[in-house]
Amino acid sequence: MIDISQLKFDQNGLIPVIVQDSSTGKVLMLAYMNREALELTIQTGYMHYFSRSRNKIWKKGETSGNVQKLKNLFLDCDGDTLLAIVEQTGVACHTGNETCFFTTLEGNGEKIATDIIFSLMETINDRKQ
Amino acid sequence: MIDISQLKFDQNGLIPVIVQDSSTGKVLMLAYMNREALELTIQTGYMHYFSRSRNKIWKKGETSGNVQKLKNLFLDCDGDTLLAIVEQTGVACHTGNETCFFTTLEGNGEKIATDIIFSLMETINDRKQ
Repeated sequence: MIDISQLKFDQNGLIPVIVQDSSTGKVLMLAYMNREALELTIQTGYMHYFSRSRNKIWKKGETSGNVQKLKNLFLDCDGDTLLAIVEQTGVACHTGNETCFFTTLEGNGEKIATDIIFSLMETINDRKQ
Repeated sequence: MIDISQLKFDQNGLIPVIVQDSSTGKVLMLAYMNREALELTIQTGYMHYFSRSRNKIWKKGETSGNVQKLKNLFLDCDGDTLLAIVEQTGVACHTGNETCFFTTLEGNGEKIATDIIFSLMETINDRKQ
């Protein structure tokens, strides 16, 4: 069972959640949870977040169908960040991109190398199924 | 060249940075940068962060030697989060763990599946070298 007392919510009652795809290893997005969003996530098995702009809880994929099934949840060493490993239905980003991190700011060609590794992971994962 | 004007720093002048290992795909940590830490990172090629507890810029690995070489830097779709792909020397976490996310809060055995994939990635990566 989850021990929520280990978590350090910030002054707004929120904790950042890094969301990573369980099959590709790609980082999909960063979102925020309040205590209720976390409880809903644990209870339902599907990711719920707190929208800072709309000031309310939302279930990821509620309208788009692009839900995220929780596979595993990690807490970092100082208790103020979560890492959720999820099974993503469809794409994670509202722009239609697979991940919200599709804009490169600085790189030296390593994006390609990383993409090759992720692509290999996808192949491995496909073969496992 | 990086266009810093695209970035949305928060009310404290900070932006969260998800740090991912380029060879294993593991999420290593979440840290924060102010504008100066980002500029130092770009200029030197090594990750610099802003410590919210010590209220100052630090170079990751400055004392431990566990530096992080920047391989690629992504901005998310709404411009308020960075994803840094890094080459990690040694371990990322001050506890001696490979990643800061070593505590499982909730899981259904998928950690093992994910670890298998990451392990395969490491093998693939080793063979590439």
